[in-house]
Amino acid sequence: MADYKAPLREMNFLLHEVFEADKLWARLPALAETADRETADAILEEMGKLAANTLDPINRSGDEEGCSWNDGVVTTPKGFPEAYATFCEGGWGALVGNPEFGGMGMPKMLGAQVEEMLNASNISFALYPVLTNGACLAIDAHGSQELKEKYLPNMYAGTWSGAMDLTEPHAGTDLGIIRTKAEPQEDGSYSITGSKIFITGGDQDLSENVIHLVLAKLPDAPKGPKGISLFLVPKILVNEDGSLGERNAVNCGSIEHKMGIKASSTCAMNFDGAKGWLVGELNKGLAAMFTMMNYERLGVGIQGLGASERSYQNAIEYARDRVQSRSPSGAKQPEKAADPIIVHPDVRRMLLTQKAYIGGARALSTYVAKWLDLAKYSEGEEKQQAEAMVALLTPVAKAFFTDRGLDCTVIGQQVFGGHGYIREWGQEQLVRDVRITQIYEGTNGIQALDLIGRKTVANGGALFELFAADVQQFIDANAGNADLAEFIQPLTVELQRLKDATAAVIEATKTDPNAPGAASVDYLDLFGYVAYAYMWAKVASVANGKDEDFYRSQIKTARFYFARLLPKSQALAASVVAGSGTLMDLEEELF
Amino acid sequence: MADYKAPLREMNFLLHEVFEADKLWARLPALAETADRETADAILEEMGKLAANTLDPINRSGDEEGCSWNDGVVTTPKGFPEAYATFCEGGWGALVGNPEFGGMGMPKMLGAQVEEMLNASNISFALYPVLTNGACLAIDAHGSQELKEKYLPNMYAGTWSGAMDLTEPHAGTDLGIIRTKAEPQEDGSYSITGSKIFITGGDQDLSENVIHLVLAKLPDAPKGPKGISLFLVPKILVNEDGSLGERNAVNCGSIEHKMGIKASSTCAMNFDGAKGWLVGELNKGLAAMFTMMNYERLGVGIQGLGASERSYQNAIEYARDRVQSRSPSGAKQPEKAADPIIVHPDVRRMLLTQKAYIGGARALSTYVAKWLDLAKYSEGEEKQQAEAMVALLTPVAKAFFTDRGLDCTVIGQQVFGGHGYIREWGQEQLVRDVRITQIYEGTNGIQALDLIGRKTVANGGALFELFAADVQQFIDANAGNADLAEFIQPLTVELQRLKDATAAVIEATKTDPNAPGAASVDYLDLFGYVAYAYMWAKVASVANGKDEDFYRSQIKTARFYFARLLPKSQALAASVVAGSGTLMDLEEELF
Repeated sequence: MADYKAPLREMNFLLHEVFEADKLWARLPALAETADRETADAILEEMGKLAANTLDPINRSGDEEGCSWNDGVVTTPKGFPEAYATFCEGGWGALVGNPEFGGMGMPKMLGAQVEEMLNASNISFALYPVLTNGACLAIDAHGSQELKEKYLPNMYAGTWSGAMDLTEPHAGTDLGIIRTKAEPQEDGSYSITGSKIFITGGDQDLSENVIHLVLAKLPDAPKGPKGISLFLVPKILVNEDGSLGERNAVNCGSIEHKMGIKASSTCAMNFDGAKGWLVGELNKGLAAMFTMMNYERLGVGIQGLGASERSYQNAIEYARDRVQSRSPSGAKQPEKAADPIIVHPDVRRMLLTQKAYIGGARALSTYVAKWLDLAKYSEGEEKQQAEAMVALLTPVAKAFFTDRGLDCTVIGQQVFGGHGYIREWGQEQLVRDVRITQIYEGTNGIQALDLIGRKTVANGGALFELFAADVQQFIDANAGNADLAEFIQPLTVELQRLKDATAAVIEATKTDPNAPGAASVDYLDLFGYVAYAYMWAKVASVANGKDEDFYRSQIKTARFYFARLLPKSQALAASVVAGSGTLMDLEEELF
Repeated sequence: MADYKAPLREMNFLLHEVFEADKLWARLPALAETADRETADAILEEMGKLAANTLDPINRSGDEEGCSWNDGVVTTPKGFPEAYATFCEGGWGALVGNPEFGGMGMPKMLGAQVEEMLNASNISFALYPVLTNGACLAIDAHGSQELKEKYLPNMYAGTWSGAMDLTEPHAGTDLGIIRTKAEPQEDGSYSITGSKIFITGGDQDLSENVIHLVLAKLPDAPKGPKGISLFLVPKILVNEDGSLGERNAVNCGSIEHKMGIKASSTCAMNFDGAKGWLVGELNKGLAAMFTMMNYERLGVGIQGLGASERSYQNAIEYARDRVQSRSPSGAKQPEKAADPIIVHPDVRRMLLTQKAYIGGARALSTYVAKWLDLAKYSEGEEKQQAEAMVALLTPVAKAFFTDRGLDCTVIGQQVFGGHGYIREWGQEQLVRDVRITQIYEGTNGIQALDLIGRKTVANGGALFELFAADVQQFIDANAGNADLAEFIQPLTVELQRLKDATAAVIEATKTDPNAPGAASVDYLDLFGYVAYAYMWAKVASVANGKDEDFYRSQIKTARFYFARLLPKSQALAASVVAGSGTLMDLEEELF
C-alpha cells in the first residue's frame, strides 16, 4: 500500500489558478482579515503532514480493531486518542469556526481541501471532528449568545465534541414521525426522552464531553416536520463557571456492527429525561438543521473524493510495480518477465477514470465551497445568488461525488486483481468505508429528489437557470479560443441536453406527480456529468498553452473525460425523459 | 432479513416455456436417458429446500465466524461440515458428472439453476462443491482412464473435494511466468515443488481428501504459456485399492483475510516435492484448463446472479414493510404514520433494476447453458456452432452477470438506507461476497479482452456473426407481431449498434494494436446490454397474450428494461468507438 501523499499541487492549482481564491478573499472583509495565499499554503502543507504521518498510519489498524462498547462506554481503536490529541493541539477543530468564540474564521474553500486530506487518510477518524464542526455551525447560527459562549470555545478546541441526533429506529428519511419528547422545565430547560440510532460519535473516548444536538417534539407540537425542535444536550452538564458538572441522563446503549468506517463509533443513544436547551425557535428545528446541512453534505461528498484519491494513489503505485503480460504494441521492458500493467490500455482506462472523476470532484467541491463562502461572507444580490447556487449544487456534490467514489474505489480495487480483495492491501477497506457516504446525511436517492423537486421543479427551474447562465458565461468567454473548441463545443451540447432534460421533467410534473421521483437519480447523474464537463473545460482553459507537465496532464485528462466518460450523459438523458410509466405500472404484489 | 425462497416459477418458465429444455433433452441421446421435465422439477424443488433450510441459515454466521487456520489445518465455520455432509448425502456433487464414473449426467441447463440456488443462499459454501465440479470436468476430459476411475467416483460423492492451483504470488493473469516445477520420476509420476496462492478450498475440514489440479512446468519446458502442464496432486495419496494412504507433501501455509466469502477458505498452498500425475498432454496444461473454464466462468457469472436474487428478495420484503414518507400521488395507507417505501418511484426504480437485471441474467445463463449442453452432447455442425457460441458468450456471462451483480447488491443495500450498512441485515455481506466474482476466474477486464480479442478480432467477427444471426432470426420470426413491436423495433436498432461497434473495433485494430484493449470493457458491457434486450424480448414473446399475473409481470419488467436500462448502450457505443488515443496519450509519469 502506497504512503498517502497530499495532492497539494492540484489543490493549489484549483484554489489559486482556476478559482482565484486569493482575489476573492481579499475583497470579502471578514476573509481579508484571516485568509491569504501564504497562510493557505502553510495550512494545506501542515494538514498534508498530519494526514500522512498521523492519520494514515492508523487507518487500517483502526479498521481491523474497530470500536468496542462495554457497559455504556465506547473505546476507539489503538492510536485514535493520541491522534485526536494531536489534531486538537494543531488547532484544526477551529479552522472554519467563528473568531468571536475562538475559531480561525478560514474560508470553506480552504476547509474543503483540508477535509479531503482528512478523509483520504482516515474517514473513520475524520468523522469525529467533522460532526463537531457541523454541530458548531448549527449552534453558531441558531443558538443563544449564552449557549455559544458556553459551548463553542471548547468545541472548536476539540476538548468537547459534537454529535447530531436525528434518526430513530422508525424514522430515518422521514423525520416528521420522530417520537423523542421534549418537556419544558421551570428553569427554561427541557427534559428530553427518547431513543436515537446511527449517531456518529455519539460516544467515544476522545473528548471530555459530547454535545448532542437532538431533534425532539414538544408534547403539544404540530404533527409532522413542522413540530420538530432542536435541543442542545450535553453528555456531561456544564457548570456556570464552564467546568464539567454532573453526568446528564444521556447514555450510549450499544454501537452498530457495520460494513466499514469501523473505527467511527455509530451509537444508539438513550435520553432518559436528559437536560437540554432549545437551539433556535420552537418547531423550527428542521430549518435550523438545514443551516448546516449544506456544509455537512458537501463534506460527505468530499469523503467520496478523499477515498477516491487514496484508492488512486495505491492503484498508480501498484500499476507501475506489478509486472504481468506484455503490452499489445510490443514488450516495453523486455529485460523483465513481463511489462508493468500500466502499459495495458484497460488498466490505463481504469486509472484515468479515477483521475478524471477525482479532478472533476475536486474542482466542483472547490467551486461549491466558493459559493458557500460567498453565501456566508458577501452581501446583497451576490449573497442571494450564492445561496441559490449552494442550494442547487449541494445535493449534486453530495450524491455525485460519493457515487463516483464507489466507482473509483471499486476500480482502484480492480487494478489490484486478486490482491485487491485481500485486507492487507487496503483497497477493499476504501470500498467498504466509502459505501456509507452514499447512504448517510440523506441517501443519494433523497439528494436526487431534493435536487429535482425542491430545488428545481418547485421554482420552475429558477435556480437551475442561474447555474446554466454561469456555464453559458464561461462558454461565451471562451468561444473564440480555437485551442479550447474541443471542450467548448461538446460542453455547449451537454448544457443544452441538461436544459432539455430539466424542462422535460418540469413539464411532466404538471400532469404526473410521480415524474420527479421517476427521473430523480438519473437526472442528478446527468447534472453531475455535465457539471464535471464544465469543471474540466474550466481546468483546460487555465492549463491551455502552459508547457509544464502538470498542465499537459490536466489537458489530457480532460480529453479522456470528454471522450470516455461524458458520453454517459446520452443514456442518462434518455432515462430521464422516459417518464414514470414503466416504474409505476407493476402492481406491488408482482414484484 | 427475508427467508430465501427459490424462484422455481421463474426457472421453470425459462427452462420449459422459453427455451424448451425438455424437447432438447429428448432429442439428444445422452440426455434422453437422464433428463426429463418431471425429474428436473423434482431436482429443482429439492435444491430449493436444501438452499432454504440448510445453506441459507449458515450464511451470515459463516461470514461472522469465517475460516480459521491453525498449524496447517483449516477449520470452516460452525455448521459447514454438517451442511456439506447433507449436500453429499443428497448426491448433489454428482449432478452433472459423467455416469460412467458415478455421475448423474444431468444437463448444464438444469445445473445452472441448481448453481443459482446454491450461490443465492451461500456463496462461500457453494465454492467448495463448485471447485470440485470444475476439477472433475478437467479430469474427465483429459485424465487417463486410470485417473478417472481412481478419483472421479469419490469426487462426485464429495468424499474427496477438488481445488484448482493456478495463481502464484507473481503470476495471476499472466500464467506463462509461473515457477512451480514438475520433475519426472521413474515410476511415471512427477515431483511437484512450488507455491500457489488464492487456492479456493485448498484445504478445509469438509472432505477426507483434497485433489489439487496444479499448473507446473517441467525443467526443460518451453518458456511462456506453451510450457505449462497440468498435474493431479492429492493431499493424501491414494492406495492401489482406493483407500487413503500417506500424506502427500502438500500443505496449506496460511489462509487469506478477505473482504468477503469469509467462510470459503482461500489458501496459500506449498508443494514440497509432492507426488503428482500428469493430466492430459505435456505442455498443454493451459488448454486442458480451458476445457473447464467455460463451465467455471458461467458458474462465476451465476454467483453474481445468485447474490442479486438474494439481495432482491430482501429488498422487496423491506420495501413492503418499511413505512417512510408519503407517496407523491397522495397517501396510500393513510391509517399508518407513513406509506411503505415501495410506493416511491425511485424505490421502484431500484427494485425494477434488480428484477430486470436478474431476469436478464437468468435467461442468458439458461441460454448459454443450452449451448454448453449442445456443445457437449450434440454432433457435427450443431456441435461446432454450439462450441462457437459458448466461446463467444462465456466471457460476457461471467463479466456482465457479476458487474450487474455488484450493481444489484449495492442497490439492494441502498433500499435499506442506513440499515443496509449494518451487518445484521445481511445486505452488506452480499456486496462484499459478490465483489470477488468480478475478480477471480479471470478478472472482468480479462474477460473483456478475451471477448474482443481472441473471440472477435482474431476471427474477423465470425463468432459474433453467429450470435447476430441468432438474434436476427428471432427478430425476423416476430417481425409480424404488432404486440411485440415495442421490443422488436428497439432490439433491431440495438443489434445494429452492436454490429457497428464490432466492425469499428475490428477495423481500428488493423492500424492500432491498442484498439481492442481500449474498447474491451465498454464493448463487453454493450454486448451484455444488447444480449439482455434479446433475452427480455424473447421472454416477452413467450409471455405475450397470457393473462396470468406472472406473465404480465414479465412483460412489464421487459418494458422497464427497454425504457430505463437499455439506453446505456448509447453511451457505451460512443466510448467503444472513441479509440485508444486518450488512453495511451498520457505519459506514465504524469498519472
